[in-house]
Amino acid sequence: MTMAELQPAACIAAQRERGLPCITERGKTMYRVDMNSDLGESFGRYTIGADDKIIPLITSANVACGYHASDPVVMDKTVAVAKAAGIRVGAHPGYPDLMGFGRRNMNVSPAEAKAYILYQLGALDAFCRAKGVTMQHVKPHGAFYNMAAKDYALAKAICEGIAEYDKNLIVMGLSGGELVHAASDLGLRAAQEVFADRGYEEDGSLVDRRKEGAMITDENVAIARVVRMVKEQKVTAVTGRDIAIRADSICVHGDGAKALAFVQKIREALTKEGIEICPLEEIV
Amino acid sequence: MTMAELQPAACIAAQRERGLPCITERGKTMYRVDMNSDLGESFGRYTIGADDKIIPLITSANVACGYHASDPVVMDKTVAVAKAAGIRVGAHPGYPDLMGFGRRNMNVSPAEAKAYILYQLGALDAFCRAKGVTMQHVKPHGAFYNMAAKDYALAKAICEGIAEYDKNLIVMGLSGGELVHAASDLGLRAAQEVFADRGYEEDGSLVDRRKEGAMITDENVAIARVVRMVKEQKVTAVTGRDIAIRADSICVHGDGAKALAFVQKIREALTKEGIEICPLEEIV
Amino acid sequence: MTMAELQPAACIAAQRERGLPCITERGKTMYRVDMNSDLGESFGRYTIGADDKIIPLITSANVACGYHASDPVVMDKTVAVAKAAGIRVGAHPGYPDLMGFGRRNMNVSPAEAKAYILYQLGALDAFCRAKGVTMQHVKPHGAFYNMAAKDYALAKAICEGIAEYDKNLIVMGLSGGELVHAASDLGLRAAQEVFADRGYEEDGSLVDRRKEGAMITDENVAIARVVRMVKEQKVTAVTGRDIAIRADSICVHGDGAKALAFVQKIREALTKEGIEICPLEEIV
Amino acid sequence: MTMAELQPAACIAAQRERGLPCITERGKTMYRVDMNSDLGESFGRYTIGADDKIIPLITSANVACGYHASDPVVMDKTVAVAKAAGIRVGAHPGYPDLMGFGRRNMNVSPAEAKAYILYQLGALDAFCRAKGVTMQHVKPHGAFYNMAAKDYALAKAICEGIAEYDKNLIVMGLSGGELVHAASDLGLRAAQEVFADRGYEEDGSLVDRRKEGAMITDENVAIARVVRMVKEQKVTAVTGRDIAIRADSICVHGDGAKALAFVQKIREALTKEGIEICPLEEIV
Repeated sequence: MTMAELQPAACIAAQRERGLPCITERGKTMYRVDMNSDLGESFGRYTIGADDKIIPLITSANVACGYHASDPVVMDKTVAVAKAAGIRVGAHPGYPDLMGFGRRNMNVSPAEAKAYILYQLGALDAFCRAKGVTMQHVKPHGAFYNMAAKDYALAKAICEGIAEYDKNLIVMGLSGGELVHAASDLGLRAAQEVFADRGYEEDGSLVDRRKEGAMITDENVAIARVVRMVKEQKVTAVTGRDIAIRADSICVHGDGAKALAFVQKIREALTKEGIEICPLEEIV
Repeated sequence: MTMAELQPAACIAAQRERGLPCITERGKTMYRVDMNSDLGESFGRYTIGADDKIIPLITSANVACGYHASDPVVMDKTVAVAKAAGIRVGAHPGYPDLMGFGRRNMNVSPAEAKAYILYQLGALDAFCRAKGVTMQHVKPHGAFYNMAAKDYALAKAICEGIAEYDKNLIVMGLSGGELVHAASDLGLRAAQEVFADRGYEEDGSLVDRRKEGAMITDENVAIARVVRMVKEQKVTAVTGRDIAIRADSICVHGDGAKALAFVQKIREALTKEGIEICPLEEIV
Repeated sequence: MTMAELQPAACIAAQRERGLPCITERGKTMYRVDMNSDLGESFGRYTIGADDKIIPLITSANVACGYHASDPVVMDKTVAVAKAAGIRVGAHPGYPDLMGFGRRNMNVSPAEAKAYILYQLGALDAFCRAKGVTMQHVKPHGAFYNMAAKDYALAKAICEGIAEYDKNLIVMGLSGGELVHAASDLGLRAAQEVFADRGYEEDGSLVDRRKEGAMITDENVAIARVVRMVKEQKVTAVTGRDIAIRADSICVHGDGAKALAFVQKIREALTKEGIEICPLEEIV
Repeated sequence: MTMAELQPAACIAAQRERGLPCITERGKTMYRVDMNSDLGESFGRYTIGADDKIIPLITSANVACGYHASDPVVMDKTVAVAKAAGIRVGAHPGYPDLMGFGRRNMNVSPAEAKAYILYQLGALDAFCRAKGVTMQHVKPHGAFYNMAAKDYALAKAICEGIAEYDKNLIVMGLSGGELVHAASDLGLRAAQEVFADRGYEEDGSLVDRRKEGAMITDENVAIARVVRMVKEQKVTAVTGRDIAIRADSICVHGDGAKALAFVQKIREALTKEGIEICPLEEIV
């Protein structure tokens, strides 16, 4: 059976409804997963990341919007290269903390969070509209992402901003976190994101970076975990117990040769395992 | 003859084509002008202006976009109050110079200028879209406005950003300046703005604030000048010679009781002279 | 007995050592307290506060340093007016959060906190040195102040920055909080600050603004509490129980006619009670 | 004759007075020049430059102060590494334009310029004082430097800020430009800076980068020019005519292997020519 025999549209609809992998008409299970990375984080004369290297390896780009990183010139260029490469563009809004790269918790109010989301979505969308690109998703950055995974009120405010802007946008958040719950509650499509190189607690949260087991250092172990998350929707928590997890998208990084080689290995393993790597909008 | 007997649509089309006041079917000339003011310039805990006081007196609001003034929470509120009052919303993009309120010349490149315009247009439009408001126009702020009035390359870059974002947006600039020329050249609707309280040089530029004749201090003289600019499309330059000028919109300010009283007097004079005060989109 | 008969120098030395009010040689107790207010919070074209109105009523000014509020031009002017009025100048460093006026918690690291303190101290001191003013104290602003009152590691980092800059600077913090503890531990002079209009928990912390009893709304009650804090070193907590508290300085605000009148009333009550209002450096 | 036989102190005094190279007591001319480079331009998570590579090759570091580049954590580290390497530290204040890296002209007023200088001097000095380092000089950055070289009013405002802060600071500016004139007029020590790789107009200004002859691309020619500037106080302008020029310091860059090799070659040529490379404070 070839890919042409599949019925992606129906499959996607079914999957979206039930939150399960596709079952094709011939009874074969088809797995799909998106691979996403943070792009366009340069600022002014400062260059960061290797966008041109990671772009060929991913299907969705999270593009910084000028609050924690990036500026209008960088955004313009980033949307252009993403479009040229045929990958999907999403907004990557962050806290207004350029000095801290958006990685420091800030107790912004829900009203502020919602307004910050609208501002950054619109700003990035301007470049997308100018280039005929349809924005696919929104994934908060850094501390905004982490806090939204745990704080439902914050997550809801973020999703309200997204919903008021465009109900077709997909909300990407930590698999099982409050952001994806809030998105679903508001009738938005939610994409559950997993990490290849991070340990999980039993409640589905990431193991704190200061604790043992925070990082999965063995690449083969990491890859096997990712494959299992996609196919079995399970992962072994740091405690040793298996927990349920859904993997719509895998977060990868392009900073450095080693990181890029790891992403390449993940891609090869996924393909070998019959898992199709495709944009988020074909999955959720 | 009542307003109902007029044919605004045809009139506007004709006027747009010829750059002239409307002639109604009964042969009577109908004059129209927009009144605009800068709104939403507060920032964080800092409050500036008296938006609630000036809103009832104007037809178009230029809303700051977070670069020279404003923040997402202020933008959200400003679009909401403008909508509630039934006035039109436009973007008021500025230089990235919060400390200088966007009033200091910065030699940004055309590529930077275009990107700054796109960024700010999109950011403000997010709040408009969230509230079902259609953005009417774009008027650069402060030093951005002044430099664009004189520098065609900068003006063109600004207009390219606007055109790529939305070809229906009206570009507001100094009457006779390079920004309105660039807008016309790119096929965008251009609105020519005049100032009641400022002196004009023979070339149509504003008299430098440090020079004699920069300000028209006699309110009655100022009002008579405005009426003449609208009806006769003429104004007396600082040299004493009459020059041609087109007045699609009058810039007014709401800072202080005296300024507000002056705006009220302008409105009364315009109405008495048979000049209809209406939004820009019904004029250009 | 007149003030001239007192022996301030010896008194201060004794008080500093024992943390007690002065006992003059004739056996009379002499009380002193500083009154401080946040000044110089304007920014660019944005004006906030009524510095000229509150200055005559206070002995120490906390001057914003450009991170949460203020800019170099405002700082220059603020130091000049404080000097002209003969009040003492202190630095009021905040988080790098202009949009949030430094009122939002940010989890900066101790190393970042220390560097932010040094940067802002030096920046303000430049204006002091240019005008021949000796900086008297440092009081962190807003969320920086509140977090430093509770988090010893943060408080220690702040005090290390201050100590490395100038060991003669007085550290002002919430009475009984971690900042004053850290200052003492590092051999710095610590000034304990109290609030006239706020309720206290039994542990000496301020009652959360969202809880009952957070604000002391009866001015007479507030004033009686302040007098007692200075003279008896006690205050009644929100639970009804008396707690020990030290009051080296009273925080007052100048925003609005009502606030100014309240400060005037506090001054009158203090004077009537024989409490001398004098700068921090004569107290701790 | 060895270096020990020279009388540096007297020599320096004489040179300072007459603006000439030293003549030792044995009648031999002694040449000296400083080599400076911009350091500490990283910001938050953004790294720029190769400070560790250029430091061993220079005698004076211009350290960014947080306006056009750098942040407090970077400043702290930069002063520490400069101190450890034994090179002198100077302030490198820029326009408040992080997005443009301080390279865009901004028409700030003299009062603003003076306040920006004071702010940044004080901020950097805090880290110097904390580490027992004496700040040696001040060199404005980018557009601030270029505008100050041409605009005497701006140059004077900058020097007033420096003089009010510390009269012992050396002001570094374009050789023959308005900044060094203003510094001398205010009684400050002025250091005249030259560029190895740039062409000069007959008036001593740098050839505009968009014009032919702006860059000296032949390394040997560049080096020969530098040697001649130091020894003969002359350089051949782009027109072919020789002009007088004074070279107290040579500006070098450490970005990239090629740039570093060029700096190494300049050092070798200077040494071979008997020109001592030493800090600014031993020259002017």
